[in-house]
Order: sequence, then structure tokens, then C-alpha cells
Amino acid sequence: MLLPSIKSQPQPVRTIGIVGLGLIGGCLALDLKQLGYPVYGVARRSATVTAALEMGIVTQAECDLALLSQADLVFVCTPMALIVPTVQRLIEHLPASAIVTDVGSVKGDIVTAATAICPNFVGGHPMAGKAESGIAAAEAGLFRKRPYVVTPIETTQLAAVDQVVAIASQLGAQVHISTPAAHDQAVAAISHLPVMVSSSLIHTCLSESDTHVKMLAQQLASSGFCDTSRVGGGNPELGTMMAQFNRPALLKALQQYQHQLDTVIELIESEQWEALEQRLIVAQQKRPKYL
Amino acid sequence: MLLPSIKSQPQPVRTIGIVGLGLIGGCLALDLKQLGYPVYGVARRSATVTAALEMGIVTQAECDLALLSQADLVFVCTPMALIVPTVQRLIEHLPASAIVTDVGSVKGDIVTAATAICPNFVGGHPMAGKAESGIAAAEAGLFRKRPYVVTPIETTQLAAVDQVVAIASQLGAQVHISTPAAHDQAVAAISHLPVMVSSSLIHTCLSESDTHVKMLAQQLASSGFCDTSRVGGGNPELGTMMAQFNRPALLKALQQYQHQLDTVIELIESEQWEALEQRLIVAQQKRPKYL
Repeated sequence: MLLPSIKSQPQPVRTIGIVGLGLIGGCLALDLKQLGYPVYGVARRSATVTAALEMGIVTQAECDLALLSQADLVFVCTPMALIVPTVQRLIEHLPASAIVTDVGSVKGDIVTAATAICPNFVGGHPMAGKAESGIAAAEAGLFRKRPYVVTPIETTQLAAVDQVVAIASQLGAQVHISTPAAHDQAVAAISHLPVMVSSSLIHTCLSESDTHVKMLAQQLASSGFCDTSRVGGGNPELGTMMAQFNRPALLKALQQYQHQLDTVIELIESEQWEALEQRLIVAQQKRPKYL
Repeated sequence: MLLPSIKSQPQPVRTIGIVGLGLIGGCLALDLKQLGYPVYGVARRSATVTAALEMGIVTQAECDLALLSQADLVFVCTPMALIVPTVQRLIEHLPASAIVTDVGSVKGDIVTAATAICPNFVGGHPMAGKAESGIAAAEAGLFRKRPYVVTPIETTQLAAVDQVVAIASQLGAQVHISTPAAHDQAVAAISHLPVMVSSSLIHTCLSESDTHVKMLAQQLASSGFCDTSRVGGGNPELGTMMAQFNRPALLKALQQYQHQLDTVIELIESEQWEALEQRLIVAQQKRPKYL
């Protein structure tokens, strides 16, 4: 347990910094500025800085992290691989009391590494998005009624957690508190596993060696196939990144999935129709818990 | 190859019989009567006979198959397990020239058995439906722009196939001709496999032993999980029946699927990120062929 020095005690948030003005960073800027916070944005490309200023979603914007020297709370909204390096570069520019949070969709390693650099780091994952990316797609209210997971660890200061929770609540999000590990296992199951399950369904159809069957399947596929294959046909870069960053949790989920699939195959092979129907009844009855 | 006797040569369809007035039978009756055919309906329950008459979707209806003694073409729209027994009971009431077709969603064994009883049997599968079942849910135009697979075998008379195709076309359906085996393998891949893949995803989440992770997954699950799990949370009786009637084709599809899943797991285990991304790119690029 780190003992926070008085110097590093988080102050009430007055000024917000955002590093990375893509879709999520842009939406955060838009909502927080509308909520009345001064918002300072930092982007890698000057074209993004110009766009943010023209859209009026930031109070000030630059390509230089030095802009954030007065920030009380900084959101790191870069691609996942850049979160920890950004925290590292950022820390020298910030007041010691500043809170740093991120929006990465996998938390374990990032929270450990970022907290080692910055004791006032609080992991976060706002679970919102849309098909388009980039600042041009930013819109107000993206986080409203969407889950926002905050993932403190043992050493995280409660005051810093409270402030990230307060801001997430002001965005209208539904805040959940979780350990990074539980978060990663939960999103592996409901978000990353479906991508692998769904893309494997597409590949099964593509691997059909009988050309007539393959073509017929393409002609007959309907809403059921469309829905089950949707996330498997999504952004390949994003799917790969999820697997890369959430590898152990995803592998565990995939192994649990294989086990469930083996059970279904065994029931069909041994013609245990009542037991199969019972499984499908449970799936039908319990699915609404996830909706 | 059976040589059709002159007596059994199919005649142009003037009068239509429908056995089983559920959703599909009811919709067929409705559309065909609107197209100007006299439609004779036979249902097991007298309440269904009354409903069909009250809805005005049949010319005449009875609980007795003897009603169909003048029918040129009979649709057997019973549950799958009853199709062959119904053809058996039906045949003594029909003119020798009458064509019999069915609407079962698996074709192999049914077509073989029904053709042995009735040489003028033509297997069919109109791929349309809705969430509600029963005659009360019948609506006009259910088959319009939907696939309708006609599955002749070597001994099926071309004239009989032509007449089933002609009626399906008049319903506005998109007609496909296929062998029963190719049909069954195609629907295994795009319709029955997704049910098993999707229900196994739900069971994976339900089998999570860490209560906090399980609860969090329920709270965080979003549109991706919703779509991927939809058909797995569908009608358990229907899912079981598909597995039961299409067992060999579904098991083959499940084994092909297991192989695809093993490949994904291997790529993630061995951290072959470029190869994984390449697979996801192929899935993204090829999925539109199935939409």
C-alpha cells in the first residue's frame, strides 16, 4: 500500500486534460466542455488539434503535453499500446496532485504499469462506441446510460477513484467498480470471445470444400447467420488488439467455450435429445440476464 | 429411375391441399387462395379448422384427409416427425397423379422415405418464419423474396418439380434447386450450427465460477453479445429438432467449426498476431457474401 504524500493528494477537479482526440477523446471533450469544465486537448497530429478547436469541443488544444501543466484530471485516450508510454511522458508535465485515468478496453497490465509510474492513476473503461472512428465522429451523450468500469487496485487512492467516478457519473454513465482482473475476464467473455466465436463461424462456412454447398449456404443464409456472424466480421485490427492485450483472459474464455461446445457435440453424438433441449432451455431462460 | 406410368403423370395444378394449418400452412393457404386457387385445408384439431374457415384463408377445411381426394398438389406442413407418417396416411385419399410436397427444414431422410411411399413427392423448404407460431400468426406474403429450396432426387419426376417450382415462384419466393444432401449441409452451416455456437457462448458465461466476474459480465454485455447470443437463446424445441433431424450434417459442421476454433486458439497461444488479423480480415471481407 503506497502512502500518499500530502503533496500528491488529489484536488477537486476543476480543469480537465485529454490526450488523444479520437472518437472517445473527442466525445469526452465535447460532453465535459458542455458540463462547464475547461478542457485542454492534446493530439499527435496538428490537423486533429485544428479540428478540435474548429468544432469548439476544447478550450485549448496543442500537440504538446506541456499544455496540461494545470490539469487536475487527465484522460489518456490513445490506442492501447500507447497508454503506458503516454503516462510516462505525461507525468513530468503534470502537478503532483493530478489524477490520470485511461479509457483502454483491457485493464490488467496497463493499470499495474501506469500506477507504478503515477500513483494517482485510476484505470477506466467507458464501454461506448460507434462504427465510425476519429474526432469527426464525436457526438454528445455517447456515454449516457452506458457502462463505465473503474478499476482501482490496492494502492489506488480512494479520493482519486471518487473523482473519476464522479466525472463518469456526470457523463450519465452507469459506473461499475471492479478489479482489473475481473474486468478483463468479464469483457473476455462478453466482448472478445464473441469475436472469435463469430469469426470462426464465418471461416467454417468459407472452408466448405463442396462448391455447391458453399454457394447454396451463401444464398440461404438469413437473419440468424447475419446476427451470429456480425462481430466476427467487424474491425480486424480491433479484434487482434483485444486478443493481444487480453490474451490470458481470452484464452481462458476460449477453453471454457471449447468445453461447452464439446458437451453439445457429445449430446448430439449420443442422441441425448432431452439433455440437449434442457441446455437450450437454460440458454433461453438465462440470456435475458445479459441484455 | 422410376418410370412414371401415364396414370401417375402430374396434371397442371388447379386445386391445392394443405395438411397442417400452423404458421407455414396458414400462410401458404392465405397466399394461394389470394392467388385464386381453391385451397382445401386439413388440421388435426377442429378449433384450427374453425379458425381457418373464420379467417377465410381456405375454401374448405376438415379434420379428415379424405377432403383432399380432388387435390392436384398437397403441401404437408406438419411438424417434421409427422411428415412421412402423414404422406403414408394421405396417399390412399389422393388421385394417383397428385403431387405431394412438404415444408420440412431438413430434407435427406424425409425425401427418401416419402418418395418411396409417393413417387410424385417433391421435397421443399420455404425458408421463412416469424417469432409467433400457429394459424393466428398467418400473414400474407411471408414467402416473398425469401429462399424456397426444392430438393428433387434422381427418381423425382421433372413435371412434378416444375409445378412445385411454379407455385413457389407465384408466392414470390426465390427458388433454389438442390439435392437433399447439399441442402442439409448448407442449412447445417448457416442455420443449425449458429444455434449451437451461440447457445454455447451463453453457457460459457453461465459457467463462470467467479461470482463477481459472472455478475459483471451480465452488467457489461452489450449489442455484440446480444447479437451473437440471439439464436442460441431461441426456441429450444426447434433447436433440438434441428439437431435430431439433421444430426450427421450438423455434427460434420460442428467438427469443422471446432477445427476453425482450434486454429484461432493456436494463433493466440503462439501470439501470431499478423496471422490472426489476416483471418479476421478474411472474415470481414467474405461475410457480405452471406448477407
